[in-house]
Amino acid sequence: MEPIYLSSIIDMLGITNPITRDFPIASLTPLEQGGSEDISYIDQPKYFALLSSSQVGAVLVRERDYLAHKELFPPHIQALFVPNPHLAFAKLSQCFAISEFANPLEPTLYDPSKPTDSQSAHIHPSAQIMQGVHIGDGVHIGARTCIMPGVVLSDGVHIGDDCKIYPNVVIYRQSIIGDRVNIHAGSVIGSDGFGYAHTDSGEHCKIEHNGIVKIGDDVEIGASVTIDRAVFGVTMIKRGSKIDNLVQIGHNCIIGENSLLVSQVGLAGSTTTGRNVIMGGQAGTGGHIHIGDFVQIAGRGAVGKNLPPHTKWGGHPLMPLDEWMKFYVSLRRMLKKS
Amino acid sequence: MEPIYLSSIIDMLGITNPITRDFPIASLTPLEQGGSEDISYIDQPKYFALLSSSQVGAVLVRERDYLAHKELFPPHIQALFVPNPHLAFAKLSQCFAISEFANPLEPTLYDPSKPTDSQSAHIHPSAQIMQGVHIGDGVHIGARTCIMPGVVLSDGVHIGDDCKIYPNVVIYRQSIIGDRVNIHAGSVIGSDGFGYAHTDSGEHCKIEHNGIVKIGDDVEIGASVTIDRAVFGVTMIKRGSKIDNLVQIGHNCIIGENSLLVSQVGLAGSTTTGRNVIMGGQAGTGGHIHIGDFVQIAGRGAVGKNLPPHTKWGGHPLMPLDEWMKFYVSLRRMLKKS
Amino acid sequence: MEPIYLSSIIDMLGITNPITRDFPIASLTPLEQGGSEDISYIDQPKYFALLSSSQVGAVLVRERDYLAHKELFPPHIQALFVPNPHLAFAKLSQCFAISEFANPLEPTLYDPSKPTDSQSAHIHPSAQIMQGVHIGDGVHIGARTCIMPGVVLSDGVHIGDDCKIYPNVVIYRQSIIGDRVNIHAGSVIGSDGFGYAHTDSGEHCKIEHNGIVKIGDDVEIGASVTIDRAVFGVTMIKRGSKIDNLVQIGHNCIIGENSLLVSQVGLAGSTTTGRNVIMGGQAGTGGHIHIGDFVQIAGRGAVGKNLPPHTKWGGHPLMPLDEWMKFYVSLRRMLKKS
Repeated sequence: MEPIYLSSIIDMLGITNPITRDFPIASLTPLEQGGSEDISYIDQPKYFALLSSSQVGAVLVRERDYLAHKELFPPHIQALFVPNPHLAFAKLSQCFAISEFANPLEPTLYDPSKPTDSQSAHIHPSAQIMQGVHIGDGVHIGARTCIMPGVVLSDGVHIGDDCKIYPNVVIYRQSIIGDRVNIHAGSVIGSDGFGYAHTDSGEHCKIEHNGIVKIGDDVEIGASVTIDRAVFGVTMIKRGSKIDNLVQIGHNCIIGENSLLVSQVGLAGSTTTGRNVIMGGQAGTGGHIHIGDFVQIAGRGAVGKNLPPHTKWGGHPLMPLDEWMKFYVSLRRMLKKS
Repeated sequence: MEPIYLSSIIDMLGITNPITRDFPIASLTPLEQGGSEDISYIDQPKYFALLSSSQVGAVLVRERDYLAHKELFPPHIQALFVPNPHLAFAKLSQCFAISEFANPLEPTLYDPSKPTDSQSAHIHPSAQIMQGVHIGDGVHIGARTCIMPGVVLSDGVHIGDDCKIYPNVVIYRQSIIGDRVNIHAGSVIGSDGFGYAHTDSGEHCKIEHNGIVKIGDDVEIGASVTIDRAVFGVTMIKRGSKIDNLVQIGHNCIIGENSLLVSQVGLAGSTTTGRNVIMGGQAGTGGHIHIGDFVQIAGRGAVGKNLPPHTKWGGHPLMPLDEWMKFYVSLRRMLKKS
Repeated sequence: MEPIYLSSIIDMLGITNPITRDFPIASLTPLEQGGSEDISYIDQPKYFALLSSSQVGAVLVRERDYLAHKELFPPHIQALFVPNPHLAFAKLSQCFAISEFANPLEPTLYDPSKPTDSQSAHIHPSAQIMQGVHIGDGVHIGARTCIMPGVVLSDGVHIGDDCKIYPNVVIYRQSIIGDRVNIHAGSVIGSDGFGYAHTDSGEHCKIEHNGIVKIGDDVEIGASVTIDRAVFGVTMIKRGSKIDNLVQIGHNCIIGENSLLVSQVGLAGSTTTGRNVIMGGQAGTGGHIHIGDFVQIAGRGAVGKNLPPHTKWGGHPLMPLDEWMKFYVSLRRMLKKS
């Protein structure tokens, strides 16, 4: 891909101040992760505090917000004035979108008698690739792994040893799957996260999700599960976790080791859990929440805030499980009395 | 298809009165939409009011209901007496069912070196049809659209320009997809609606859904979403709307422009929304409801009635969002006091 | 498969007492179903009462539980002492796991001009197998059944007459599908149940589900539905039931005749229903519950206990429908007064 220079995006993003240093943009990153050729954005005042330790080369920001926090900008970070930083970030993300298949018109159907050069190089001789499997460029498949018919592995997918990938699973580009992972039929790993910036007229501008999904060793994923990839970095399911059918894992979620997510659970974006968390069927969470180690959520529980380790919860709104078990009994009793 | 004459369905439907004019039945329609060769049915008294402006040729109706509303029947509409109009309608719908593939034993696998006549006729030269795509008769694929492996497009599907149809998506017959539409892996567009008539003995008789799904421009649909086609007419997702993973859209729903439906939302049949509606994760609706422009439903909100524009709601049962935010706090306080 | 002798699993399971009779293990079964070459386990005291009528050859049990109930063991049942019977059972189940495809490297893609010997023997000449269908060993397909592109049928699947199996459906090994069954696109029948035993250190050991799924005549299954197979025996959907999109049916569930499960319903494992049960959208159940004949559950209803026939329910926690309809009205009135 041709490098995209900062100077070339001024018009597209509507940057209103002159740039002080031009550079080829490496990527979009959060403030705390980027380097001198990366770009970030600030949409809310709370993020200005991160500037002092940030190494990014430039930040998209509203002019008035910049002026109010000017002293927090270190000399190595350029402020780029835009009317809507989130929208500018979304537009810029589209320049860095990665295709599922760099060469869509080349063969993807795996043919053991004549795999493409790319395919042959990375498939362990003991892997069992059944008929009807589509494999993109640079895919790695480990020892004794079985890939069943109808599976589609986009460019750069990496699958470890001793996995079973059941029929019609789709794994999006660059996803990383550990060893001894089972993924049941119809599940989708690595699809775009649900993230949009909004225009003044109420239209939604897609934020390209350029991160990936990473699945740890010994994870089992049920049928028709959806796990979105990260906007930056990774959505991660850590070692030993088990996910039931029809579960939704949003972009940038991190599920701790040995957790159990029962059927139809839904996790909104950027929610993280500790280890050995259990969520009952149809439970759900808001976004940007942390659930501590060994927390248990009863079926249908709706998590809207951070939860400390070793606690149990239920209901919507969420209450400590003990309270939830008695709450409606008490209400019914009170109603009868009144 | 051979025309089906009204006279030929008398026995099948158990019509108990003589017909006054025979005609080849064009289709089944709602009272307000049909013409002189269409048939409709009346199952509930409130629909008799629509007869005066209806142009249909005949109506399935209970004899006793007819006798009670005889004066409302214009001379051009025949009343056809049946014991259970909904059941008769269901049986008749089965005569008009349309196959996914008119020629199932002909090749459907797209082969760029020798597409079938039907396939080659409608695929833009700049479209990218990857390996392993199945295409029915009369499918149209627009410029620069990319169809990824494992996608199945039934007869008559129309896809616009610049779309991305991800692996293993299934689009049922005659669905219409606009320009710049993304549909993520495993989603199903145009499946049969969940509609049955019921016999006296408690069996369910399938109502064939002979409508279609229409997706507007700039719509994005997540992974493993299901959108059912209409019983008549269209299920529609209007321009600019974004639908997250594992969402269910029932038959005959209409989603207004630029709406956002977060993961695991479920809309029952015939529910419609205005523009820029937002429904949080796992929210749901009953059927035959209208949600006004710019309405916001919190996650898990359960919509059971029409909602006026520019309002915010949450909870189950649904309450104004402000009330819902305080409701449980107040209940818990009251319980502590008591 | 080589027979597995009881004597060969002593070390693997950590059995601490000497065995008294060796035998080739036929299978793992519940206490009440097995024969003299089957093995069962007891994890909870309530199951000791089943020993007197059981015919199994051996039972995995904690030594201290055995000593407390020694007199209940008939002479033909060996007690096998293990520290964690559920975990030992899980490990043993893995020895009896059945592959989806016994011969994954043989062709599975159905080619009408040269089906494999196994395929040709069991496909009715009037069945329509479209292009792009994968068929395992010993699959049976009945008269006039249509199998659409992208469908994967694992070894031993049996499909009756006049079925429509829509694109990209996956049916796991040995599932039995009746006559006149429709299964819509993307659904998964017979995937592994969500069952694990737990180690002391909080890891989860997979219980292989060696049962099957059985679907009765005249059943319709929507799009992206998941139905797990049984741990032993069958998960069953009985004749005439209709299941909407995105429904989850757990392992060992039994759905009675002519039931209706609306979209996004979730049933936990081993829940059973009588006939003509109706569950509204997004309703759910706990596990090991029985719902009586003709019960109706309102949308989003959460069933946590057995329900008697001919009753109506709603809410979470579940209440009689009448009470649920008034409950929140009363609460709001009470709050206004206070």
